[in-house]
Amino acid sequence: MPAIYKRSNSAAIMQLYHYPDLSLTTFFWEGPEFHHAVHVMRLGTGATVHLTDGKGHLAEAVVQHIEKKKCRLEVISMTTRPPVQPAVHLFVAPTKQIDRMEWLIEKATEIGVQAFHPFTSFHSERRSIRQDRLQHIALSAMKQSHRTYLPEVHALTDWKSAMATAATLPVKFIAHASGSSALKTFPIAPEPAALLIGPEGDFSDQELQDAIIAGFTKVHLGTYRLRTETAALMAAAALLS
Amino acid sequence: MPAIYKRSNSAAIMQLYHYPDLSLTTFFWEGPEFHHAVHVMRLGTGATVHLTDGKGHLAEAVVQHIEKKKCRLEVISMTTRPPVQPAVHLFVAPTKQIDRMEWLIEKATEIGVQAFHPFTSFHSERRSIRQDRLQHIALSAMKQSHRTYLPEVHALTDWKSAMATAATLPVKFIAHASGSSALKTFPIAPEPAALLIGPEGDFSDQELQDAIIAGFTKVHLGTYRLRTETAALMAAAALLS
Repeated sequence: MPAIYKRSNSAAIMQLYHYPDLSLTTFFWEGPEFHHAVHVMRLGTGATVHLTDGKGHLAEAVVQHIEKKKCRLEVISMTTRPPVQPAVHLFVAPTKQIDRMEWLIEKATEIGVQAFHPFTSFHSERRSIRQDRLQHIALSAMKQSHRTYLPEVHALTDWKSAMATAATLPVKFIAHASGSSALKTFPIAPEPAALLIGPEGDFSDQELQDAIIAGFTKVHLGTYRLRTETAALMAAAALLS
Repeated sequence: MPAIYKRSNSAAIMQLYHYPDLSLTTFFWEGPEFHHAVHVMRLGTGATVHLTDGKGHLAEAVVQHIEKKKCRLEVISMTTRPPVQPAVHLFVAPTKQIDRMEWLIEKATEIGVQAFHPFTSFHSERRSIRQDRLQHIALSAMKQSHRTYLPEVHALTDWKSAMATAATLPVKFIAHASGSSALKTFPIAPEPAALLIGPEGDFSDQELQDAIIAGFTKVHLGTYRLRTETAALMAAAALLS
């Protein structure tokens, strides 16, 4: 268990589980999370369980009846939490060492990033990711940090598709050394924001030009150079703090 | 190579080396970094090398003469950079999984933390660290991010010694859920600051009380719970941004 730095009204949650559909008042719970709750945590009949669907809902449910491979839960209270604002969409070229990308997804989920859009850049060394593994890391981090929104890890796309997706977002920042203003000097707005972070080999001139034409604002992240994953996390923190 | 987000006057540095004593104008360079520069990077006579002593100095030197196990360098320019303000001293209980601590040291060095003071807390699960390994991670991160100050990773101490060290610093924050104000709402001051982050099992009541008596200000880090290493990095970023 991590130390708890939160100041929320969910102090009673010890363990948060994920259940994708919380539309029913009673349902059978099965699978690995059921197994963990009943066979590892040893929750018995009458115990309280907290679940989120990753779409903002937090259910408090009571174990009514346990069978070998499932149990029946009855939802006794349901809370809907507002999403984090702004919705931060991280557009990031996967790092050569995939553990750095995995780390970024864990940390960015902890601080409240809404979506990850991996893309291949002209200078990307890595051209493939395991989307399911990265999505699973986001799921674990969501539960760990007691959040109720599951960030979506999108499939790896090319630069053009990334630009097309970003075009739908009202606020757009590209992190680059040539930016004349620091990201942190911009006022924090509630609108969804695209944060575009370059690959380890930096953006190509063409990509920089494309981004400017697409309406991205060039910003820098300080005086020192940061690794791709550090830059992405610090940029997200600047928008979310 | 990472993407470069910096906006400094050191654009010409491709690789930064560490040499602990830059007091002489010419000296023989040997050891693993010499080996890397000459035998891996294939720098020849007349090539330019950048070195820092980790104490603020940045030397530009020219390779004058190469032998098998060493080469002679002549320093042609020396820059002294001011230290990052505030000097952030991270007091953190080592995480159970040591890679999380290692990660914190890398990232915190990238963003400019000055010193690490690991301590064992009442609820610490981990009671030992490899100080030399953690110090080496800080060294790599300093070079990687082209910084010229090497953060010191102190030896693991007990709670009492950590309190005694922190007492010498003018600004002191302890991160805890019960803090009534967010760290980020405090104005950033140039004075050296102690940032005290609890272990995975949280501070004991006695520790919290000790810290308040020692003059620490209790602050929270937002609404959600963060892992120890995420809390430490986000708190440092709040003071350094």
